[in-house]
Amino acid sequence: MAIPSDMNALLVTNDGYAATPSGTVLEAMEPYVAFDRIAVPQPKGSQVLIKVGLAAINPSDVMFIKGQYGQPRVKGRPAGFEGVGTVVATGEDPAAQQMAGKRVAFATGSWGSWANYAMTDAAACIPLIDGVRDEDGAALIVNPLTALAMFDIVREEGQKGFVLTAGASQLSKLIMGVAADEGFRPIAIVRRDEQIPLLKEAGAAHVLNATAADFRAALAAVMKEEQPRIFLDAVTGPLAGAIFDAMPKRARWIVYGRLNPETTPIPQPGQLIFMQKRIEGFWLTEWMRHTAPERKMQAVMQAQRRFSDGRWATNVTAVVPLAEAMERVPAELAKPNGKVFIRP
Amino acid sequence: MAIPSDMNALLVTNDGYAATPSGTVLEAMEPYVAFDRIAVPQPKGSQVLIKVGLAAINPSDVMFIKGQYGQPRVKGRPAGFEGVGTVVATGEDPAAQQMAGKRVAFATGSWGSWANYAMTDAAACIPLIDGVRDEDGAALIVNPLTALAMFDIVREEGQKGFVLTAGASQLSKLIMGVAADEGFRPIAIVRRDEQIPLLKEAGAAHVLNATAADFRAALAAVMKEEQPRIFLDAVTGPLAGAIFDAMPKRARWIVYGRLNPETTPIPQPGQLIFMQKRIEGFWLTEWMRHTAPERKMQAVMQAQRRFSDGRWATNVTAVVPLAEAMERVPAELAKPNGKVFIRP
Repeated sequence: MAIPSDMNALLVTNDGYAATPSGTVLEAMEPYVAFDRIAVPQPKGSQVLIKVGLAAINPSDVMFIKGQYGQPRVKGRPAGFEGVGTVVATGEDPAAQQMAGKRVAFATGSWGSWANYAMTDAAACIPLIDGVRDEDGAALIVNPLTALAMFDIVREEGQKGFVLTAGASQLSKLIMGVAADEGFRPIAIVRRDEQIPLLKEAGAAHVLNATAADFRAALAAVMKEEQPRIFLDAVTGPLAGAIFDAMPKRARWIVYGRLNPETTPIPQPGQLIFMQKRIEGFWLTEWMRHTAPERKMQAVMQAQRRFSDGRWATNVTAVVPLAEAMERVPAELAKPNGKVFIRP
Repeated sequence: MAIPSDMNALLVTNDGYAATPSGTVLEAMEPYVAFDRIAVPQPKGSQVLIKVGLAAINPSDVMFIKGQYGQPRVKGRPAGFEGVGTVVATGEDPAAQQMAGKRVAFATGSWGSWANYAMTDAAACIPLIDGVRDEDGAALIVNPLTALAMFDIVREEGQKGFVLTAGASQLSKLIMGVAADEGFRPIAIVRRDEQIPLLKEAGAAHVLNATAADFRAALAAVMKEEQPRIFLDAVTGPLAGAIFDAMPKRARWIVYGRLNPETTPIPQPGQLIFMQKRIEGFWLTEWMRHTAPERKMQAVMQAQRRFSDGRWATNVTAVVPLAEAMERVPAELAKPNGKVFIRP
């Protein structure tokens, strides 16, 4: 396969972090990325070069290009943390050479997936089993591993009931699918009534609309019934504070996203003392660093099996050609209930 | 020793919890306790009856009588969680009988120390070694064990620098004394310049006045220099949030008091995700439940030794006779830098 010397890519246009937070909505691409030509990189050592089949757009990508993610931007590099594709060149290390020619799901480090070719470490590539669609392969790592890792926390805590905000997100649906299969009882918080039947089907034991007039009473009743200990929160802000406040003793508020840019209060700090409640965070990058390799491999295989046998499926909102991404991505991302991909 | 049938006591006048938070200042005694006669209780089983020599007034007592502490009030029972005195009667259990006649520091459960006689479990009594003054014995449990238990958290985390709010409190001074002896570097946050030399003497490596114009800059500089990981917070509210916000990666905000009733914000919830920061609480009651008996005994002996050899000393603001407590206690508690006792 002939590899060209340069390629199309969406290049990050800023360095480092944003000076001020700007929320998680991507109002336009132009302030953050540019569609441009760049040299195709040469893999060295343990690196591999991947011809990108499909690249995902995750909330973490949006946070990253806006300078609000946990690692600094590097101006002029392609964006995109995740994708699926074929390894077309490798560095000299055996681990890299073993990937040659394989169709892989991959996560990126400093060189992103929103391009014709992506470069990453062989260790960040997962050779795909048959039956995993490109749409699932391109979204196999960030969301599914986050889902399995966060569900590990729920399982270890033991209580069957647990709470999720952004209940209608792809990630929440993945978590609820695994949870329901294991007899756990997800309590999904949403903001629109039409999401209620969808989420019940996805495995939710309860779905509460936070905008409903009787939300506080319904929340209190469900807390009393289920006694949930884990709160997986993608939202923060006053709503998340109120949910945490309503939870019973030893509740753990695990923040993994920041969809609501409003100030996040701790309504009753005394609960941290007298009810042994805790507030912490979850970051997949950190989980990757501190989790045993066997558990990681197990999670990767579990994710593939769930996608290939249909227990999990990625809902696709749109597949946008790379050349149209600047114009179309923000509007596609604004649509609910599905995932947006870039096809180079 | 003849035991009378009834006695003077300060009796709790409300049941359960307050409906709304009212802050930690004791504006008056009357809404919460009454000076009255009550029958002297009869110890049974593992209980002992103590002729109270001196009873302490801790912040937790104030929170309790105001209905804001982690256990419900029982109307008509004497208040007061701690004191010193002599065991004058016991239940039939050997553990109780062994305490007969001894001078003990004691913590109470449902029957308090602000009375001529207190009743508690033998397990909550600490026979005192010679050289421990009544003022130290009456304040030997709540503050000193909290200090040693919280310093255990600092020691386990390992970083020498750590942060304390309410830096001029008795509790903070106890912590700083132990910490300085072990080569740790307390960073005390205070609100008045005159406390700075006192706290440097008490063991603080840095003392920052939160009301100073350059506080934020001074805080940032100290954080950079000391890289503290533990924040022992008695205050909460916006100041505590700002301190936590300025702390480095993996910082743990450990709330053990609520002196500022304002809303407590988490300034940047993203730090929970990307910097692995955590927010939790400390409650001595919980530590008592989950700590090995050897560690508890060790802490009790360490506290006694520190008081008897003068490394620790309880600063006494006032010793108020029980009959004058209703009138005098609120004003005495409002004075800074010392502890108020009740003498039955």
